[in-house]
Amino acid sequence: MTDVAPASLPAPPYYAVVFTAVRTAGDNGYAETGERMMKLAADQPGFLGVDSARGANGLGITVSYWRDEESIAAWRSHAEHILARARGREHWYTSFALHVAKVERAYGFTRPAEL
Amino acid sequence: MTDVAPASLPAPPYYAVVFTAVRTAGDNGYAETGERMMKLAADQPGFLGVDSARGANGLGITVSYWRDEESIAAWRSHAEHILARARGREHWYTSFALHVAKVERAYGFTRPAEL
Repeated sequence: MTDVAPASLPAPPYYAVVFTAVRTAGDNGYAETGERMMKLAADQPGFLGVDSARGANGLGITVSYWRDEESIAAWRSHAEHILARARGREHWYTSFALHVAKVERAYGFTRPAEL
Repeated sequence: MTDVAPASLPAPPYYAVVFTAVRTAGDNGYAETGERMMKLAADQPGFLGVDSARGANGLGITVSYWRDEESIAAWRSHAEHILARARGREHWYTSFALHVAKVERAYGFTRPAEL
């Protein structure tokens, strides 16, 4: 068994920020800043949760969930986050795409425990 | 350099289906069906693109992009897809979450080629 599971979220509507990115070679300070950004984001008003995965081919997807557009805008204008994004363009990413989307419906599944 | 990159998409609005899932142990026919579903989805009217990543901890994220709700509904009612989803609940997933979201804005970044 594993404790890994998708983020627990309230009922829609809420917002999803889908960040899809391919990394450059080497760490170049990415791991430390990435960890700091995850912690900082989780402390922001309106933050609901985050899921993240990076495959062996280097493509990573991070989906963060937010209560509304205002909370996304506030996080976007956080000074440390602005700095981290600049470093991302300069050092860490070969390419990325960011999508801001309003979640209209959602459902989940959890396997019943084995007897 | 790598050819891996986020999906190329038209300007918003369009829809994103965010599927976040934790796998059970073993393949149990997952790889073959997963590959078939990717090909089949790409052939559906209104399919715009897909990004997928699975991390070492077993959490996977697949984001497929669609022109509108009608194309999502049509894919959802495709017979082979219905069967695959049933097998997913029965065999392949410990837990999953699915979010249907309308993308309101998006932007991308591609690192300029090194001289």
